[in-house]
Amino acid sequence: MSAVDFTEFVAGLATSSGQAILPFFRAKHTTEDKSAGGTFDPVTEADRAGEATMRNLIKRSFPEHGVLGEEFGTENADAEYVWVLDPIDGTRAFISGIPVWGTLIGLTRKGVPVYGMMNQPFTGERYSGDGRKARYEGPGGPRELHTRQTAALAEATLMTTSPHLFAGAEKQAYGRVESAVRLTRYGCDCYAYCMLAAGHVDLVIESGLKPYDIVALIPIIEGAGGIVTSWSGGSAAEGGTILAAGNKALHQAALALLAG
Amino acid sequence: MSAVDFTEFVAGLATSSGQAILPFFRAKHTTEDKSAGGTFDPVTEADRAGEATMRNLIKRSFPEHGVLGEEFGTENADAEYVWVLDPIDGTRAFISGIPVWGTLIGLTRKGVPVYGMMNQPFTGERYSGDGRKARYEGPGGPRELHTRQTAALAEATLMTTSPHLFAGAEKQAYGRVESAVRLTRYGCDCYAYCMLAAGHVDLVIESGLKPYDIVALIPIIEGAGGIVTSWSGGSAAEGGTILAAGNKALHQAALALLAG
Repeated sequence: MSAVDFTEFVAGLATSSGQAILPFFRAKHTTEDKSAGGTFDPVTEADRAGEATMRNLIKRSFPEHGVLGEEFGTENADAEYVWVLDPIDGTRAFISGIPVWGTLIGLTRKGVPVYGMMNQPFTGERYSGDGRKARYEGPGGPRELHTRQTAALAEATLMTTSPHLFAGAEKQAYGRVESAVRLTRYGCDCYAYCMLAAGHVDLVIESGLKPYDIVALIPIIEGAGGIVTSWSGGSAAEGGTILAAGNKALHQAALALLAG
Repeated sequence: MSAVDFTEFVAGLATSSGQAILPFFRAKHTTEDKSAGGTFDPVTEADRAGEATMRNLIKRSFPEHGVLGEEFGTENADAEYVWVLDPIDGTRAFISGIPVWGTLIGLTRKGVPVYGMMNQPFTGERYSGDGRKARYEGPGGPRELHTRQTAALAEATLMTTSPHLFAGAEKQAYGRVESAVRLTRYGCDCYAYCMLAAGHVDLVIESGLKPYDIVALIPIIEGAGGIVTSWSGGSAAEGGTILAAGNKALHQAALALLAG
């Protein structure tokens, strides 16, 4: 990964945050509306418990590191190493009992994503990567992750969290790709990118993502041989519009359709 | 359940079909297009292996029973007991690596659904019911299933496999309910009905279902305190349009919106 090997430390973050979050899954838990009277945006105690657990461990082991988290904001953003955390990516799946949410643990060095993990504590799955390799642990046993080589859009499976993510010109652009692929699946947040890294689906297209929604996933996707960029082909690390593809040919084909 | 207790036998069907199906999940497997040049309709070897396993066990133990299965058709449909089987409900989720598919094992007596199970062998979850009680087994330990008592559409979570299930007047009718609820989730097939039985979501609305897509789920939903009918309030056991709700007030409210 980088100069320092954080693999074991991240595994510990995953174990501890999973222990903090899992008791809230499918239990009666409070949700609240974080948005100012607009869209329903549930936040659970589990989100906060998971992020607090990880922040405490990071502060204790690496007090000089920065942290950017969904729930508790940014600290020490100019540090060489910055952790980018989303305790529950897929809160809507979480509050609906569906195990396609995940804990995202990302690490950037000088602004570049160098390591990431998606931890799903209910199914016992972990997807991790460092940009050169990517790995699965969970039911069925550990294995390396490799994207698949579907080259034609007409043969591809596309995933997105919801077709309602998109409006206006973005909706048109997304629609051009959806019309060109063989199969589209909705509803999986971070889990979709891990299915791409594992070679089960070919494309993920989303919009309106925050850095903590995507930073941890970039070294997993790239480590498995995939490509992830913005819709204009730039860095995905800032969030916004995201296009992930299992291989270069498919990425180019989707990029062209998104451009119109 | 009924005059005879099939609980242990069904648990055995679930174990054996799970062993037949699971090796194909996330492995390279063949898919084919079952439809005549139309929509992509994947059928896997896993589907056939799972159904064949269950049919063999049923024939050996209950040669006088009927069987209706997705893959191998109907045998002895006029028997007092008829098994209604869908080895992989949610084939599209299955081939995309997403563990929200399930094996549906239903039993009718004189045409009435009397017992049902949804088995998810990857996550190790089983949801079962006999119309009076319903039960969960899996991670977190066994428990009884109870629907929740959300009475207002404005507070409800709705699930459907895909908004593209609906066309024409059905699309309008579905849209009226989607516009009235707080949260909609896509993409879960049989798993959605189990989340309703478990009290995590409040409504499931679908169309174009076959009997083997719903028969096994009826005794689970009703056993957990929920209501499942067609969009006109009739029996759900024939498939077609389906409305499931966690309680009577919500069922009535959704039924009224679907009627226009």
